[in-house]
Amino acid sequence: MRMRKKPWAKDMIAARTDCVIAQPEELKGNWKQLGSQHVIVEIGAGKGDYWINMGHMYPDELWIAVEKNVDAAGIALKKSIDNTAANMKFIVGDAASISQWFAENEVERIHLNFSDPWPKKHHTKRRLTYSSFLNDYRSILMPGGKIVMKTDNARLFEYSLVSFAQAGWLLTEAYVDYRSQSHDEDAITEYESNFIALNQPIYRAVWEVVK
Amino acid sequence: MRMRKKPWAKDMIAARTDCVIAQPEELKGNWKQLGSQHVIVEIGAGKGDYWINMGHMYPDELWIAVEKNVDAAGIALKKSIDNTAANMKFIVGDAASISQWFAENEVERIHLNFSDPWPKKHHTKRRLTYSSFLNDYRSILMPGGKIVMKTDNARLFEYSLVSFAQAGWLLTEAYVDYRSQSHDEDAITEYESNFIALNQPIYRAVWEVVK
Repeated sequence: MRMRKKPWAKDMIAARTDCVIAQPEELKGNWKQLGSQHVIVEIGAGKGDYWINMGHMYPDELWIAVEKNVDAAGIALKKSIDNTAANMKFIVGDAASISQWFAENEVERIHLNFSDPWPKKHHTKRRLTYSSFLNDYRSILMPGGKIVMKTDNARLFEYSLVSFAQAGWLLTEAYVDYRSQSHDEDAITEYESNFIALNQPIYRAVWEVVK
Repeated sequence: MRMRKKPWAKDMIAARTDCVIAQPEELKGNWKQLGSQHVIVEIGAGKGDYWINMGHMYPDELWIAVEKNVDAAGIALKKSIDNTAANMKFIVGDAASISQWFAENEVERIHLNFSDPWPKKHHTKRRLTYSSFLNDYRSILMPGGKIVMKTDNARLFEYSLVSFAQAGWLLTEAYVDYRSQSHDEDAITEYESNFIALNQPIYRAVWEVVK
């Protein structure tokens, strides 16, 4: 999503040394030393609502948000300034670098929420479920590790179902209207609730890595 | 779907010797001798609209409808009485017997249209995308053969995506709102158009057999 420039965003990111990991490559292979055996990564965390909710709901998991947009990251870090638990970390950076930050088999689960659909065909490679990204995810995920994807975008969902299948991932769950049933285990962000209010179905799938 | 008894259905089936295959097991391994290299099977053809439309749209393919409900089959055969091309055949029987009718590698494509969703968990085994059916489909399909499924039922679609994945099939196409785009290559039956009129999305997927 486009958003207005936040001139204070860089300062906010710099000030949040309690949770921002400025040099994630230095933690490569050692994320569990931050206090949890369960390393969870949300790629494209946006304004951080899902990360904040899930980080608090699952204190035994290490929740690492990744967001490349400095303004969105600034908002997430401002919003969570008095509301960040020890198991919540933040990386301001591009997911294309993810295999520089995490070692092989280090991550238990990756979440993709409402990722940019990049609808034009010549932008296919930018989709976070394009094959090159899937290769990186496969590398950093542990055996049995999973990717959980939610989106309101039908075309991105369809594309992703086929992309994961072609890359040999195992689909373990699929929902074409996830919120038609109750799922208290999964946080609903304000962003998601706007779609629900419009009766826009939420699509969700879970894939297990095959390595 | 439930339907009123048609007392004339059995006579209609018996009378349509031009297209009803009364002893399909006798053709096992020899269906191509009916005049096409492309053996297409629709399982659960209901009142036959899809079979009639597609049979005429694709005269180079052998279109074999399978329907176990005698009343539905009777309607399909009455409806097509003056409208059945040489490439259109009909089996009144239960798809559970399909591997008795077709030899290994004999079928190019299987269509499942608006199959009974059998929503109750203890009826899972009756769904036409349950693993035991998938084993039969795998056997009769040729290498590269495909299953094409359409449904209005979200739960059946979700179940089927996972069921095929677990059984090792390769998803090659997925649509969560197939009719939001134009697909002139695929017939829209009256049954399907009712769902479209109600803005009910049509789900569709194509899987390639892996053998």
